[in-house]
Amino acid sequence: MNYDRQQILSEIVQPGQSKIVLLVMDGIGDLPKDGKTALQKAKTPNLDRLATESDLGQTIPVLAGITPGSGPGHLALFGYDPVKYQIGRGILEALGSNVPVGEKDVVARANFATIRDGIVVDRRAGRPSTEESSKVVEKLSKSIKEIKDVRVTFYPGKEHRFVVKLTGEDLDDRLTDADPQKEGKPILFTEPLCEEAKKTSEVVNELMEQIGSVLSDEQKMNFALIRGFSKYPRLPQFPQVYKLRACAIATYPMYKGIAKLVGMEVLETGVTIQDEVNTLKNSWDKYDFFYFHVKKTDSYGEDGDFDSKVHVIEEVDSLIPQILSLKPDVLVVTGDHSTPAILKSHSWHAVPFMIWSPYTRKGLSRSFDEFECARGSLGTIYAVDAMSLILSHGLRLEKFGA
Amino acid sequence: MNYDRQQILSEIVQPGQSKIVLLVMDGIGDLPKDGKTALQKAKTPNLDRLATESDLGQTIPVLAGITPGSGPGHLALFGYDPVKYQIGRGILEALGSNVPVGEKDVVARANFATIRDGIVVDRRAGRPSTEESSKVVEKLSKSIKEIKDVRVTFYPGKEHRFVVKLTGEDLDDRLTDADPQKEGKPILFTEPLCEEAKKTSEVVNELMEQIGSVLSDEQKMNFALIRGFSKYPRLPQFPQVYKLRACAIATYPMYKGIAKLVGMEVLETGVTIQDEVNTLKNSWDKYDFFYFHVKKTDSYGEDGDFDSKVHVIEEVDSLIPQILSLKPDVLVVTGDHSTPAILKSHSWHAVPFMIWSPYTRKGLSRSFDEFECARGSLGTIYAVDAMSLILSHGLRLEKFGA
Repeated sequence: MNYDRQQILSEIVQPGQSKIVLLVMDGIGDLPKDGKTALQKAKTPNLDRLATESDLGQTIPVLAGITPGSGPGHLALFGYDPVKYQIGRGILEALGSNVPVGEKDVVARANFATIRDGIVVDRRAGRPSTEESSKVVEKLSKSIKEIKDVRVTFYPGKEHRFVVKLTGEDLDDRLTDADPQKEGKPILFTEPLCEEAKKTSEVVNELMEQIGSVLSDEQKMNFALIRGFSKYPRLPQFPQVYKLRACAIATYPMYKGIAKLVGMEVLETGVTIQDEVNTLKNSWDKYDFFYFHVKKTDSYGEDGDFDSKVHVIEEVDSLIPQILSLKPDVLVVTGDHSTPAILKSHSWHAVPFMIWSPYTRKGLSRSFDEFECARGSLGTIYAVDAMSLILSHGLRLEKFGA
Repeated sequence: MNYDRQQILSEIVQPGQSKIVLLVMDGIGDLPKDGKTALQKAKTPNLDRLATESDLGQTIPVLAGITPGSGPGHLALFGYDPVKYQIGRGILEALGSNVPVGEKDVVARANFATIRDGIVVDRRAGRPSTEESSKVVEKLSKSIKEIKDVRVTFYPGKEHRFVVKLTGEDLDDRLTDADPQKEGKPILFTEPLCEEAKKTSEVVNELMEQIGSVLSDEQKMNFALIRGFSKYPRLPQFPQVYKLRACAIATYPMYKGIAKLVGMEVLETGVTIQDEVNTLKNSWDKYDFFYFHVKKTDSYGEDGDFDSKVHVIEEVDSLIPQILSLKPDVLVVTGDHSTPAILKSHSWHAVPFMIWSPYTRKGLSRSFDEFECARGSLGTIYAVDAMSLILSHGLRLEKFGA
């Protein structure tokens, strides 16, 4: 049902005392390898016990058969219609990297790449270390400061990634990606998708030429692919819409970026999942909604590393008692999409979803995996419905209608 | 998928001879108490046998996680988009109490309440008998007849409830409830939600003052809370849209009101479920669609009286053979929402749905309860889709498209 859910919720949501944890194991959904999915293979006594006390279901992130990026996958979980709110990857990367983005700026996500004779031979330039790539970003910063009347700023990112920010008048983000997406293809310049974006496209293409010449003596990082052009999108703010003091615990820029965009406070945390749990404990009194993001389930899925995905799931399982010891009123365990190791990429498959609270129907399911979720008491729902389920289980919604 | 279902149906629906019974056990959906829901606990040999011959599923009344009032719950079952058609409780109560409502009138639902020093100490004034409260309504009728140029009429209702009707020019129903909703809070006056409703708000607030002074010598019924202001909404008419001779068998005003609003004929009936079954029998030849409402499943749920909810279910079960003896072509057993006894209120949980006809897939389910429905052959559907399923099982829909 294609309603504006946030509008409906904002009219019936009430402030409350309940504590809510939304645990997102990125790309958790899987396909069987040797007859079992990663969730089925993993030993998860804690998640399985939760399953017996929870309502299970499976979510469709956008529409059946649609493979979502991380942006739509998360926005849907947060209750934002992922078709209505299409967010450029550039802005997510920028916000997650603490890049200040003004209203008129256009930001983009860039990759160092290796090219030979105009052909992209390595889209990640041999995956340089963050330290190595930062030095090259510095080199760019020194050499390229302005193109036409547009100021260009570079910000270092993880490994081969960095962020480009354009500051000036009349900039527009309706541009195609300057990235052939595949290796063995010629480099690609950007094209404007409308008249208003023509100036920006010229600046970007000139920028690419300049980057090419500044880096011409580099062995590997000798070019940059630039994509996800975006301005700062104005989204309804999560804490106001849902009347929740909301924070995000995440280790990767992208997810911090999404959280910032919707107005959550992004907490400082370490790199391990245990670090994230510690952050959860330390901030428990200050917030009532905790978005808790686990990245590695997705990373290993993308690498095709089934066994490591299984191990991350087991690691999360082992930390569940620490989360429960905080006595949350609602604990949701789910993902933003599926990333089957055998596909080595995001996929369209429905995503396991489990909600634990005193007010579940419970008793129908015995373990937390794709199949129990497919036959769970919640049925198959859209991810965009997760927030209303979460809020209702936190007893934060009034009745709709008389 | 947010299509106008009634538009689609109206183009393919055909008149027919099939007899359809829609048995709504109000608030039937439950949460487990000591491991079982009321439906699981109840001995229901007849419903369970039906389940083996039926298609089962569960419905989402409005949206996942949204707790519906009785209005939206029923409208959805009747095929009306419950977000598009939001109906004030006042009009439902008024129509159900046989109050004639004109096009310009504003009606509202009122409660007798007990106040002390401006604080509401009992929102239901000690639940007076219908007889007691009728006398006080008469007292109001004698004392208050007109405010400004607006005629005020009072109609008695069940127990602490009554209906207020305002008749005059330029009345508007966009007013906040004059009801603090909770005991221990100060009385609350109404506020206009727009400029056009200013006059009506002044009349209502003056009315409240006058009610207060007329009732100042009453021990318990010494004030009135007024809410659900509404004009007469124009809805598509059920008998025309679906080409059905439709009637309603219900004992409570609210449900009679909804039925009238959509154009069903409301039949006179007694207070017991057996009375309602007798009415069904006596009117069997005159109609082909019977909306049959059982109230007490909800009432006991709201009271937190799990065992009595179980007994009402068993009572309904025992009457099923009488309904079947009429040889309906389609029998649907469902609810308008869930009312778990452990929550003592309506809830957001999905609602059991069972459709019995010669044309079901049957054979998958063994009993009629929340879990069998969650895993039933119909899956999880929106309540607003019930009518098209009902019509198709009654062989009243033509093929869609060539």
